Amino acid sequence: MANIREIAEKAGVGIATVSRYLNDTGYVSDQVKAKIQKEIEESNYKPNALARAIFTKNSKTIGLIVPNICNPFFNQIASVIEENANNMGYTIFLCNTDDNAEKERNYLEVLQSNRVAGIIVARSKCEEVYSHIEIPVISFESYISDKIITVSSDNYNGGKIAFEHLYECGCRNILHVRGPKSFEATEERYRGFSDGAREKNLEIDFIELESDFQVKMIDSNIEGFNKISKYDGIFVFNDIAAATVMKFLKQKEIKIPEEVQIVGFDNSFICELLHPSLTTISQPIQQIGTAIIELLFKLINGEDVPIKDHFMKTELINRETTLPRR
Amino acid sequence: MANIREIAEKAGVGIATVSRYLNDTGYVSDQVKAKIQKEIEESNYKPNALARAIFTKNSKTIGLIVPNICNPFFNQIASVIEENANNMGYTIFLCNTDDNAEKERNYLEVLQSNRVAGIIVARSKCEEVYSHIEIPVISFESYISDKIITVSSDNYNGGKIAFEHLYECGCRNILHVRGPKSFEATEERYRGFSDGAREKNLEIDFIELESDFQVKMIDSNIEGFNKISKYDGIFVFNDIAAATVMKFLKQKEIKIPEEVQIVGFDNSFICELLHPSLTTISQPIQQIGTAIIELLFKLINGEDVPIKDHFMKTELINRETTLPRR
Repeated sequence: MANIREIAEKAGVGIATVSRYLNDTGYVSDQVKAKIQKEIEESNYKPNALARAIFTKNSKTIGLIVPNICNPFFNQIASVIEENANNMGYTIFLCNTDDNAEKERNYLEVLQSNRVAGIIVARSKCEEVYSHIEIPVISFESYISDKIITVSSDNYNGGKIAFEHLYECGCRNILHVRGPKSFEATEERYRGFSDGAREKNLEIDFIELESDFQVKMIDSNIEGFNKISKYDGIFVFNDIAAATVMKFLKQKEIKIPEEVQIVGFDNSFICELLHPSLTTISQPIQQIGTAIIELLFKLINGEDVPIKDHFMKTELINRETTLPRR
Repeated sequence: MANIREIAEKAGVGIATVSRYLNDTGYVSDQVKAKIQKEIEESNYKPNALARAIFTKNSKTIGLIVPNICNPFFNQIASVIEENANNMGYTIFLCNTDDNAEKERNYLEVLQSNRVAGIIVARSKCEEVYSHIEIPVISFESYISDKIITVSSDNYNGGKIAFEHLYECGCRNILHVRGPKSFEATEERYRGFSDGAREKNLEIDFIELESDFQVKMIDSNIEGFNKISKYDGIFVFNDIAAATVMKFLKQKEIKIPEEVQIVGFDNSFICELLHPSLTTISQPIQQIGTAIIELLFKLINGEDVPIKDHFMKTELINRETTLPRR
């Protein structure tokens, strides 16, 4: 690939002139502009974004740290963030942590070395590291510190809505399939669901799954699943786990929703693929992704942004796994 | 954040010495090394990967261009590639194109400007641009030119296996739900399936869907779907579309597999979530991802790699939507 020196030589101008033209940092006559542009096109020269990043102190890159890009919830968020960032001329570094603190720490080193303009981190497992990071950070789904903005769905209220819906659908013998206790988001859903039940003086049962996203969920949780068939209403902490619960019930020939009603969480694409289609609590993915990017760009641009938690509204998406009463 | 000049000053050495230490490009005494390392740790200095990239001419970054990170097949491949690249000290730029040639072209500019060490592109829509790119490229799923290595599943044979399986399961009145004609991978599945039928002198019917991954697939393809109920065997070009076909049939109260048998393609996580679980043709995702990264690193390291197509073996994963006869 041609470099800036060769472009300058061929156009018969100085390197500084080419640099002024490329970075739009000073006067270049139209005639010279045309000459330079012609040489750039003919030689297939690409301006060096790394050099420009060092010079302008803006790499136009953002680090996106997620637990697992295969989880539909995280890849939908990633897709919204990528699209918004791309529209602003930014590119995304994809960092998958598998909920592993060591992987997250390593990626944070890499992102800082690459002078990313900002970092978005979902479900951090190494909160203590962030106090040393001078790059703008937005945390998604979990609290890191009182110096970092958190954006999250209103998981607590989502859990509460899930309870109220099952109750209104006539369920009185209710189970909540919880996510791993270390996940703030699913713990909030559990709290909201439990508080909803307490308000109605209803005892509910719980089982806990060990992972939020696994292909062989039944096999790895079979002991817990054997309790599932005793209930008339089940709230499951996410849609994939709810699909697994549905599959287990169908294998036992228990009818959904006639014998047991199910509510999931996320409103991911699988809800529509299931039969019956899954009633769920939606997280406003588009709105969450947009809020994250907008807040991050404000921080990148040095705006004064109040550090507070942003909870995005969750709501009931009524489908076929529940039977609302008139 | 501290810079290299401040580190040098505090350690009482020259900038060149710190640079030699950081880049391991020359002798530094153990005593001086210890002094520099102490200052680096105390000041939370992160070496500038951008400067190092310019100096060493290796950015340690890779561009990954995919049509849609929400499609389970592409996010599983992305996950394997990310993990392998990370193990080699490389970070991934995630580029989502939505099968849009303009978005792909723009990303190619960005990746070249960022001096990525290599590019992996899935299902390219602007093949002509690649002849001007001097960075190593591996193409995934579609042929770009005879100068670029393609890695792909053996889609043709996968289609053939799908036909043979339905035939062996006793189906004689068979439909193939095809993917969009512009996708090389699904066209190959169609070719393999058709050739399988021709060998048995069996006429088969076809319908074509317009997209490979859509939540509201039934709604957007309802006219085609109304033909579906007439068959005893259906091969669908991917698992998500197969799940949609299954849902449509269940709504019509057509029994799977007793009245109609179904085969999907991909072996993505949804196969196990469906009830009955979906018989499918597996693409060896781990193997494909690893092959792509290995070939790309050989090119990055300047090794002489024969330009040829690599077809990875597809195979039948027998689940509950088909009934093999003894």
